[in-house]
Amino acid sequence: MADEDNIAIDPVTLIAQALEEEAPERLRTILSGMHPADIGAVLTSLPPDQRPVLFSLTPSDMIGEVLLELPDSIRSDLVAHLDGSELVAAAKSLDTDDIADLLPDLSDDVISQILFALNKQDRQRLDAVLSYPEDTAGGLMNVDTVTVRENISIEVVTRYLRARGALPEDTNKLFVVDRNDRLVGTLQLARLLTADSKIRVGQLMNREPIKFDAMDSDRQVAAAFERYNLITAPVVDEDNRLLGRITIDDVVDVIREEADRSVMAPAGLTEDEDIFAPVARSSRNRALWLGVNLVTAVLASMVIGLFEGAIQKIVALAVLMPIVASMGGNAGTQTVVLVVRGLALGTITSANSRRVLIRELLVSIVNSMLWALVVAVIAVAWFRDIRLGFVIAAAMVINLVSAALSGVTIPLFFRRVGIDPALASGVMLTTVTDVVGFFSFLGLAALFLI
Amino acid sequence: MADEDNIAIDPVTLIAQALEEEAPERLRTILSGMHPADIGAVLTSLPPDQRPVLFSLTPSDMIGEVLLELPDSIRSDLVAHLDGSELVAAAKSLDTDDIADLLPDLSDDVISQILFALNKQDRQRLDAVLSYPEDTAGGLMNVDTVTVRENISIEVVTRYLRARGALPEDTNKLFVVDRNDRLVGTLQLARLLTADSKIRVGQLMNREPIKFDAMDSDRQVAAAFERYNLITAPVVDEDNRLLGRITIDDVVDVIREEADRSVMAPAGLTEDEDIFAPVARSSRNRALWLGVNLVTAVLASMVIGLFEGAIQKIVALAVLMPIVASMGGNAGTQTVVLVVRGLALGTITSANSRRVLIRELLVSIVNSMLWALVVAVIAVAWFRDIRLGFVIAAAMVINLVSAALSGVTIPLFFRRVGIDPALASGVMLTTVTDVVGFFSFLGLAALFLI
Repeated sequence: MADEDNIAIDPVTLIAQALEEEAPERLRTILSGMHPADIGAVLTSLPPDQRPVLFSLTPSDMIGEVLLELPDSIRSDLVAHLDGSELVAAAKSLDTDDIADLLPDLSDDVISQILFALNKQDRQRLDAVLSYPEDTAGGLMNVDTVTVRENISIEVVTRYLRARGALPEDTNKLFVVDRNDRLVGTLQLARLLTADSKIRVGQLMNREPIKFDAMDSDRQVAAAFERYNLITAPVVDEDNRLLGRITIDDVVDVIREEADRSVMAPAGLTEDEDIFAPVARSSRNRALWLGVNLVTAVLASMVIGLFEGAIQKIVALAVLMPIVASMGGNAGTQTVVLVVRGLALGTITSANSRRVLIRELLVSIVNSMLWALVVAVIAVAWFRDIRLGFVIAAAMVINLVSAALSGVTIPLFFRRVGIDPALASGVMLTTVTDVVGFFSFLGLAALFLI
Repeated sequence: MADEDNIAIDPVTLIAQALEEEAPERLRTILSGMHPADIGAVLTSLPPDQRPVLFSLTPSDMIGEVLLELPDSIRSDLVAHLDGSELVAAAKSLDTDDIADLLPDLSDDVISQILFALNKQDRQRLDAVLSYPEDTAGGLMNVDTVTVRENISIEVVTRYLRARGALPEDTNKLFVVDRNDRLVGTLQLARLLTADSKIRVGQLMNREPIKFDAMDSDRQVAAAFERYNLITAPVVDEDNRLLGRITIDDVVDVIREEADRSVMAPAGLTEDEDIFAPVARSSRNRALWLGVNLVTAVLASMVIGLFEGAIQKIVALAVLMPIVASMGGNAGTQTVVLVVRGLALGTITSANSRRVLIRELLVSIVNSMLWALVVAVIAVAWFRDIRLGFVIAAAMVINLVSAALSGVTIPLFFRRVGIDPALASGVMLTTVTDVVGFFSFLGLAALFLI
């Protein structure tokens, strides 16, 4: 960004210094010149014990917005440091849909104080947003829509807007409704500015806008915004009555969360895992996952245990067996990653999943034969035993083909039973490739080499 | 989305049927009623041999937009099926920044035809976009800005816009420039509609808009759009002259690509890997990665090979050794995922990386002691050898702590030398945890058990 910009560049260092020197006035000055989003980012990158110090120095008119920018776990820690009146003040400075996002972290007492402090219209709006789950179009929407009727002229609309005063943030279109509040179209602000003032709204509006049901999932909303390049879109109820509007900035947050989840979930982490959280909390969060992995590792060991005799006779088996398991795991992971992404983007459907399976099997046959040959050559050169080469090559082909088979079927299975394929497919796959890898290699060796 | 919507729901099945029955007229009708983005999605989910058939039936006025919606690899395949005049017609229907995205797939001959077909202004615009790399603010920008001067009244602006006619897509603000085209501010359309018409632009505009240098990276742009909830933002050159504007829909594409890369790269896949590509092409794309993994697997095997004697004496070592390696790999992967994400989001900086390292080491000490105990109990119960329990417990602690150490330092190292940490950190980490896991367990066993 340009130099004379009003965005602080690496404010972390500046603030860390001031925190160390315990200079609250300097901190106050730095913070008051910052964007709430930047304050949120600095808080996230501080050690947990320094966060409340900095947070308490944040200008009171920014507290609400700063809270919105924080990951859930950090937000609930900091909310505990505010008293009721501060929380009410913070909430009052926010849009109703943003207040709705904060409520889960607040005590019943504070919530009723906030509701009491809102005017009737805002309270009704808050009720509207709260009546839908957080991960639906209804939970995502703003309720501050500007509506007009289709039979009025552009001139009248313009006069109305001027009389109304400031439009809600990110308003790029007006919603055209009938007398029962049913959505009949949308009208871009840009068209309003360039159109003949005698024309009526009905002649200028888009009669087939993309709109969402309040119960549509936030993933559907994000996919549609992405695909159709939307900035804002209306939300309606089952009777097509206008409830609110969704804006792209909230959708970008959904896309980001989904993206984070798809990276974090395969490692058994939640998307708001805080890398600066207390050691005890982090250890607990991660221990469970290691436990799951221990079960699969022990399973693989038990397979090896079946062939103790063979290993004792041919110790080369112990040396080479991790290669078979590891190559299967890597090839299968490639398939899993592609299938999980295809399912998320909707390019893999029930209509073409059989075709995906056949293709992945073919790719695995080609690649397993290539790498079976290479591994066999290595094994023969190392241990001077042609038969060992044949055994490891056969095991490689078996494991890579079964890796492709499970790489496609495991995510499809999880999708069907309603478990997020990104979460569990990876660990399930490596269990299969370890077990099949060890079993096929050691089993074939026991059959043919001993 | 609501039922009466104009978005086709699962058009894949409908089209697959029509393709099978070879009904070109029916396909033409279906396609002409679809959104270009949906046609792009259908093409992506079809087998490669059916794509040209469907593509050739796409209405000519949509071809340009459909091409833009396709992943790079599929786009260049399909472009080959169009002749020069079709490509020129497709390009002419697009914005200049979108034409710039298509050019890499076109022959020099077609490019010169397209340039010839554009008017002078559009040609200059195209030149402006092409002079910046694709992954910069300059490469991302649209050049169709609407500019005004700060000393004119809102009334004059309104009259100018009406005379000008339709505004460029997604225009939500006007750019205020001086006589040398230097950016002095931005003016929201929404404010224009509600302000007193006598007021001057200078009194109403935002004098400190967030703006980008043309050479800012697209990642920086995406991070700023996300953090500051931007819809559009101006791009300027080093003299603060207005070059163009970036709109959120193009930024969402950058966020999506980055997200895809962070999932695909650790499995050695590029983000535009096509799950329906010919088997030969897919096999080639993936073979290289398997080759890299084979090198690391052989390395681990060589470590095991050092201790053949110990394994021959105590075959339990071969049975248990994958547990030590696997637990280290999983614990280290959790650290790598967190650090790679922290680096991408900017929450991990040089200022706090030491703190991250210390925290991860502490977490690993806690978790390694817990799981070392569990694994030791399993080992003793299984093989009735207390000393084996001590050895595997010690190896677990060594491997999990070294996994934490490498989980933090490997991504930081790749970042420093300019390699994308998401790409190579995972494979590097598992190499370390395999080698350290096998070496510590077998090495300690050779020292103390034999």
